[in-house]
Amino acid sequence: MRIILKLEYDGTCFCGWQNQNNGKSVQEALEKAFFETTAEKVNIVASGRTDSGVHALGQIVHLDTTTNIPVDKLPYALNTHLPQGVSVLDAEAVPDTFHARYSAKRKTYMYKIYISPHISPLKRNTHYHINYQINIEEMKKAAQFLIGEHDFKCFQAVGNDELKSTIRTIYSLLIEEKGNEIYISVTGNGFLYNMVRIIVGTLLYVGQGKLKAIDMQSLIENRDRTKAGPTAPPQGLYLVNVEYE
Amino acid sequence: MRIILKLEYDGTCFCGWQNQNNGKSVQEALEKAFFETTAEKVNIVASGRTDSGVHALGQIVHLDTTTNIPVDKLPYALNTHLPQGVSVLDAEAVPDTFHARYSAKRKTYMYKIYISPHISPLKRNTHYHINYQINIEEMKKAAQFLIGEHDFKCFQAVGNDELKSTIRTIYSLLIEEKGNEIYISVTGNGFLYNMVRIIVGTLLYVGQGKLKAIDMQSLIENRDRTKAGPTAPPQGLYLVNVEYE
Repeated sequence: MRIILKLEYDGTCFCGWQNQNNGKSVQEALEKAFFETTAEKVNIVASGRTDSGVHALGQIVHLDTTTNIPVDKLPYALNTHLPQGVSVLDAEAVPDTFHARYSAKRKTYMYKIYISPHISPLKRNTHYHINYQINIEEMKKAAQFLIGEHDFKCFQAVGNDELKSTIRTIYSLLIEEKGNEIYISVTGNGFLYNMVRIIVGTLLYVGQGKLKAIDMQSLIENRDRTKAGPTAPPQGLYLVNVEYE
Repeated sequence: MRIILKLEYDGTCFCGWQNQNNGKSVQEALEKAFFETTAEKVNIVASGRTDSGVHALGQIVHLDTTTNIPVDKLPYALNTHLPQGVSVLDAEAVPDTFHARYSAKRKTYMYKIYISPHISPLKRNTHYHINYQINIEEMKKAAQFLIGEHDFKCFQAVGNDELKSTIRTIYSLLIEEKGNEIYISVTGNGFLYNMVRIIVGTLLYVGQGKLKAIDMQSLIENRDRTKAGPTAPPQGLYLVNVEYE
């Protein structure tokens, strides 16, 4: 039986989604908890990797199991074996053809920023701290240029120059202000490596006047990562949800 | 010169405000940072202690110094020496008669709760998790009985039975719901040890129907801690601000 799990995790606690030699991954923690719960060794496939420090409110993963624990009881059973920092929020049986990564149609990320003269200890692992004022209206104008189907190579981390397509579609990109916090939400059919964090870094360049909203056009056309803004740090980023057909 | 500092801290990182043998305190971290910044050994006095796990958005402390660092630059200087988990947000010169604790007129605390079947990893250190529904309207009714000047001995942690007065005044007690989160804000002229956490535990008993709103009257009259609800855990509690004349 193939099942999917919906996960929330605090990226601060892990070296990222994927098993690595340099630290504890979410994948490893979940596979270990699954073994402790069911005595089955399973390989868990996520909708996509998240880097160290990046959070998830609704990561979707799939796995194949023969367990006789009822699917709706699995989250409770797994959560008793999971370490602090990750929880299973939901579980569901799916057809064997379902694939957490390849069946995904849309993903939504959110990026949280706050503006303050001093760092906020209570936000240090959950938001990106900036200590300068920004022009939100200009950032919203810039965001409009990113919506739609484009070759987003300028927003792909260097060192990822495989022969694969860098064309993606962004369905929406919303920028909201609440007090001294700024939330950037972006929904697309897929994202290149570090794409959301580079978009955020570039929008903040626009907010500071280092780039103009209209510059987004030539940035996309020129496909040159070095002309975009910096990669915003991981702790502000959340994988909010993944949508399937 | 006497100065006051406004502090934010993540209580998860400390054994509480006060220097103790069993861990790193906020006081110790701040006194160490002050020494590294000014080469002065100072004794720092807070508006009140906070326990391990309890957060502060606006703790006020005072100290005496002969530093020639301008007061408005002190937060920046101190923050470069402070560990993760605590920041100085503001500094101000005050008269020598000012005392962070004895001059305080009003304090506001907030307590954050969320309702969810499973623990939220991203809220585990900042909110109290409950997995049952509660009657908010009944809790609001109960809160009305606590407003005003009362002998709050029923909400004082046992083992604190000194001969001091247990009479305090609560000016406001607000309960707000936002999605699956509940915020309880309470302002008073002072609070007994664990008083806010015991009030929250008692209000949650009312929310669950284990006590009725009207029971608050006899609870206060009887001055019996054992009749009140349990002490809610520390990680949901925030010292929001301290007001002076």
